[in-house]
Amino acid sequence: MSERSESAYERAGVLPIGGSERQQQFSRLLRATFAYCGSVGRPVMDLGYFANVIDLGNGMGMAISTDGVGTKTIIAQLMERYDTIGIDCVAMNVNDLLCVGARPLALVDYIALARYDEEVMVELAKGLAEGARQAGISIPGGETAQLGDLIMGGPNERGFDLVGTCIGLVTLAHLMTGDRLAAGDAVIGLASTGVHSNGMTLARRICFSEQGWDVGRRLDELGRTLGEELLEPTAIYVQEALSLLDSGVDVKAYLNITGDGFLNLARVPAAVGFVLDALPEPPPVFPLLQRAGGISDAEMHSVFNMGVGFCAVVAEGDADLALELLKERGRGCWRIGTVVADPERRVRIPAKNLVSEGKHFR
Amino acid sequence: MSERSESAYERAGVLPIGGSERQQQFSRLLRATFAYCGSVGRPVMDLGYFANVIDLGNGMGMAISTDGVGTKTIIAQLMERYDTIGIDCVAMNVNDLLCVGARPLALVDYIALARYDEEVMVELAKGLAEGARQAGISIPGGETAQLGDLIMGGPNERGFDLVGTCIGLVTLAHLMTGDRLAAGDAVIGLASTGVHSNGMTLARRICFSEQGWDVGRRLDELGRTLGEELLEPTAIYVQEALSLLDSGVDVKAYLNITGDGFLNLARVPAAVGFVLDALPEPPPVFPLLQRAGGISDAEMHSVFNMGVGFCAVVAEGDADLALELLKERGRGCWRIGTVVADPERRVRIPAKNLVSEGKHFR
Repeated sequence: MSERSESAYERAGVLPIGGSERQQQFSRLLRATFAYCGSVGRPVMDLGYFANVIDLGNGMGMAISTDGVGTKTIIAQLMERYDTIGIDCVAMNVNDLLCVGARPLALVDYIALARYDEEVMVELAKGLAEGARQAGISIPGGETAQLGDLIMGGPNERGFDLVGTCIGLVTLAHLMTGDRLAAGDAVIGLASTGVHSNGMTLARRICFSEQGWDVGRRLDELGRTLGEELLEPTAIYVQEALSLLDSGVDVKAYLNITGDGFLNLARVPAAVGFVLDALPEPPPVFPLLQRAGGISDAEMHSVFNMGVGFCAVVAEGDADLALELLKERGRGCWRIGTVVADPERRVRIPAKNLVSEGKHFR
Repeated sequence: MSERSESAYERAGVLPIGGSERQQQFSRLLRATFAYCGSVGRPVMDLGYFANVIDLGNGMGMAISTDGVGTKTIIAQLMERYDTIGIDCVAMNVNDLLCVGARPLALVDYIALARYDEEVMVELAKGLAEGARQAGISIPGGETAQLGDLIMGGPNERGFDLVGTCIGLVTLAHLMTGDRLAAGDAVIGLASTGVHSNGMTLARRICFSEQGWDVGRRLDELGRTLGEELLEPTAIYVQEALSLLDSGVDVKAYLNITGDGFLNLARVPAAVGFVLDALPEPPPVFPLLQRAGGISDAEMHSVFNMGVGFCAVVAEGDADLALELLKERGRGCWRIGTVVADPERRVRIPAKNLVSEGKHFR
C-alpha cells in the first residue's frame, strides 16, 4: 500500500533519481544497522526493493516485508463490511514477498482500532484467514491496539488500521534481486481484481468528495455498486508465481504493481527500462475514476494498477511457455511489453505518450 | 505495547480464564491458518504467547513478534522530540522475541503519519537505528504510509503510529514455551527504565487531563521534567537475556513485563502461579502516577511494570548464579518471587494483598 507516491516509494534506497537529502539520511541511518548483526541476520539486499532477505546461513534466506491496506479501511467502514479487507492485508504482503523469489510462510497482523470492537476484529480475522488460505500461509500471531487518541473513528466511529508483516524462505542461489534483467526480456502482466489497496485516497476524493457519490451508488459501467467495486479484495498471486517458478521457467523478476503503479517496474536495480506497448484495456473502474476526477494519464498510471496487478519478466524465448503456464491458473495474463537497455531505468507507455522521470510520469 | 488490558492480552489464545465468545472466535479463525502451510512454516506454539515460532525444518525455528509503541507517540509530539521512540519500537519487539528463547536478527518498521513529514521520519530512524544497535539487529526494510484520513494530527499535527515486527532464530530443542516452570523456581526481575511503552493512555489521562500538568513541568520526585520521564526509552534486554542463555544457566522462561504489568507472568502455559514477595521499591514515577490519579494497587500492577521490565525464571539452585551473571551487565536485578503450583495460574503480590483473577488483580 502506498497512499501517495511519496510514501513507500520515497523511502526506497534505490530510487532511480535521487530522493531528498532527508530521504537519503533516513535510508543511511537504517542501512547502518546492516552491520549490527553477525553474518547470520545480515540483509542480503539494499533497502527499497519489494522485500528484503536476511541471511540465515547454509545458503538459505528469510524474506521479510511489511505493508498495510491504507485507507481502504474507510471503504470497509462505509460499506459496514469488514470480512474481506484481511485478504487485502495478506495480498499486499505476500505479493511483495514473491518478488524476491521467496515462498511465503507466515504473516503477523497489526490491528489498531479507534475503539475496542470485537465484532470488527472477528470480521477482520475472517478476511485474514481467507487470505492465508489463498496464500498457503499461517498467521501465528499479531497485535491489537486500542488507540482512541491516535486512530480516527471515521464515518462510523469504527476506524482502524490494518497492517501485516510476511516472512518466507528463499534459497539464496535462487534469490531474485531484479539484477538479471536484460534488453529483450518479455514483461508479462497478470490481471488485477480492481484498484486493489492502492490509490484509495485519490479514489475516495474523486468519488465521495468531488462527485458526492456514496458507496451504495450503482454504476452501470461497473455492473455493481461503487463500494463493492472499491472493496473488491486484492488478488493474491502466490499460486501463479510459485507454480511458474516450480515449472522450471527462468523467471528473472516478479514485480508487484502496487502503490506508484507501473513505476514499480523501475525498482529493479538492473540498468534497464521498460516499454509497455501492449497493455490491456483497463477494466471499467479505471476510466470511470479518470473521467470523474479529470485525472491525467500520467497520474493514473503512477497511482493505479490499471488492470495489471503483478508482472513477471522472462527471457523472450520463455514468454510463450510462461504465458501458457500462467493461463492454466485461470487468471488473465498478457505479454504487456519489453525490457530495453536504459541506465535511467525509465518506464515508457507509448500509447499514452508517457515516459517516467524519477517518481513521476511525464 | 498494550494500551489497555483489553488489547494485546485479550487476543491471547491462552488466557487464564476464558475470554469472550468473540475473542475465542477470533483466535479460532486465526488458529485454523496453522494448517494452511506444509510442515515447514507451521507455527510450533499456540496463539497468545509473547512470540510465536515457525518451523523451518532441520530443528530450527523462526520466531516472530509484532508490537507498536502505542500513544507514547503523543508524548514524543508534546516534547517535539522524535529521536528516541524508535528505541521503544525495537525494545517492545525484541524483548517479546527473547521470551521464546530466540536470538533477534532483524526488525521491519511501519510508520503511519498524519502527514508526510521527512523531519520526523529522520528522527524516528535515529531511534530505530540506536535500538537496532543496542539489540544487535538489522532493519532491512519497512513501510511508511501517509494516512491523513486515519491518523490524528494530535497536539502538533505531526501524529504518527510506530510499529515493528521482529524475527529471530531459535533452535527448536531450546525453545522456551513457558511449560517447564515448576513450583519452587525463582523469579528474577530486571529493572525497567520507567513506564516503558505501556499504560501511556492512563499516564496521559492522569498527568495531562486530570492534573493539567504539561510535559515541561519539573517534578522534584523525578529530578527531571515529566516529559523526559515519560519519554525515557524502553530498556532493551537482549544482552542480558542472551548472555544468561549463553552462560549455560538453565533459563526456564523469560517474561516481558509489558502491557498488563505482572499479569504477563500468567501467560505461561504451565500450571503454575507466582508469588511476588520481594518486589523492589518502585521508582518515583509509579507512586507519583498512583497518587496523582488515585489509582488502586490492583490497577497499577496490571497496567504498569512498577520498575520491573523483564523477568527470568530459573531453578532455585541457579538463582544466585543467574543474579550474579545478570548484575555483571550493569542493570538492576532482584530475586522478586517464587513459582508455586497453581492450576489457575494466579499471580500474588502479598505486600499489596493482590491476587490475580483472569485479566485483573483483585
